[in-house]
Amino acid sequence: MVEKIERKSLAEQVYDQIKAEITNGTWKIGEKIPKEADLMSNFGISRNTLREAIRALAHIGLLETKQGDGTFVRNNSELNAIMQKRVRESSNQEILEIRHALDREAVILASERRTNEDLESMKKYMKLCHIAKEKRDLKEFVKADTALHLAIVKASHNDLLLDMYANILEEIQFSITSTTEINPVESTHSGHTALVSAIEKRDKEQAAREVTEYITLFKRIAAKNGDN
Amino acid sequence: MVEKIERKSLAEQVYDQIKAEITNGTWKIGEKIPKEADLMSNFGISRNTLREAIRALAHIGLLETKQGDGTFVRNNSELNAIMQKRVRESSNQEILEIRHALDREAVILASERRTNEDLESMKKYMKLCHIAKEKRDLKEFVKADTALHLAIVKASHNDLLLDMYANILEEIQFSITSTTEINPVESTHSGHTALVSAIEKRDKEQAAREVTEYITLFKRIAAKNGDN
Repeated sequence: MVEKIERKSLAEQVYDQIKAEITNGTWKIGEKIPKEADLMSNFGISRNTLREAIRALAHIGLLETKQGDGTFVRNNSELNAIMQKRVRESSNQEILEIRHALDREAVILASERRTNEDLESMKKYMKLCHIAKEKRDLKEFVKADTALHLAIVKASHNDLLLDMYANILEEIQFSITSTTEINPVESTHSGHTALVSAIEKRDKEQAAREVTEYITLFKRIAAKNGDN
Repeated sequence: MVEKIERKSLAEQVYDQIKAEITNGTWKIGEKIPKEADLMSNFGISRNTLREAIRALAHIGLLETKQGDGTFVRNNSELNAIMQKRVRESSNQEILEIRHALDREAVILASERRTNEDLESMKKYMKLCHIAKEKRDLKEFVKADTALHLAIVKASHNDLLLDMYANILEEIQFSITSTTEINPVESTHSGHTALVSAIEKRDKEQAAREVTEYITLFKRIAAKNGDN
């Protein structure tokens, strides 16, 4: 079947090419992108066309132009960028309910599908959580806890779920650590030993109950901080 | 506190204004946007600036320019547009797992929070489902079923959940009706009488079980159609 060719402006083609560099990881988050002159000669385009593409990428949140400093990669997917914008307009309570939905489905699927490699990865980050907890190092703990949650969602073997989760996790980790008065390092709920153990035994009901338990704790914290 | 003023190009400001017209519903999905000459004079901008803004809006999926026909509103939110793009890259199995996550959380919250108005709205669409079923009108049934699911998610009183759900629902309804060999009009699972009844009684466990039941049916249909 003959398909209609999509008409794209030059700036849109440049947008797509730059997006591809970001998505495939050639240009990494936090890094400065190449100089304007180099990009113009690489793409064989005018300054105006390049700037139009960069402005559109900045608008969507993939790039960030800092006056007098250059243009930096801010996000590596459009979904990520847009979801972050949308999630930031939401209350902690709303975000926690979405996280409840995604976490619960993730642990149910992970209980069915986790491989031995998935389990090793979870146990590695669980151990890092416990080490950070003993050292009472909040920053290290949040890092290890984030990695543990991502390892669990990866074990669901659903890429769409992983994408959606990764975006929300960034916001939620920020909101939890910035609003909580209860230090998660001191909480008995941290480390997720029982959750990982349930996934190891492929006990999806128990895994789902563990999720409900920590989300309920987070919701109490959010409510206590006056966020509803 | 003095905040830094965000520098925006003229095209970006026009982008934001057009986006606002779409988001607040002045310009509706499927409608043609005003003529180029009128927009140029309304905004007091040049043709180039207007076209840059429109191209960016088309790129993100809010507008669609049809050669020789004009520019139409395609989506009413950036999240919607980007989620649709991402969801289209996913398998039916992956989408159904996300829907399982969101539907389950929605009915649990709706069981707690539904008002009498929410319930009336659900019953109205449930009745339309049953009428369409008796008439064996698949198109009408899908329309009523979609409205029923949205009414249930609205009763969760979580706007972020509703936004995420609305985007996925469009894709999933399409994929189900286009791939299924089992006519939902003939299925005993259609109409969701038991689900709405559970939400009415505020029985969240029963409501969640009803969701798992129809998602399991949909997963079997998707698997039967060779999609995994």
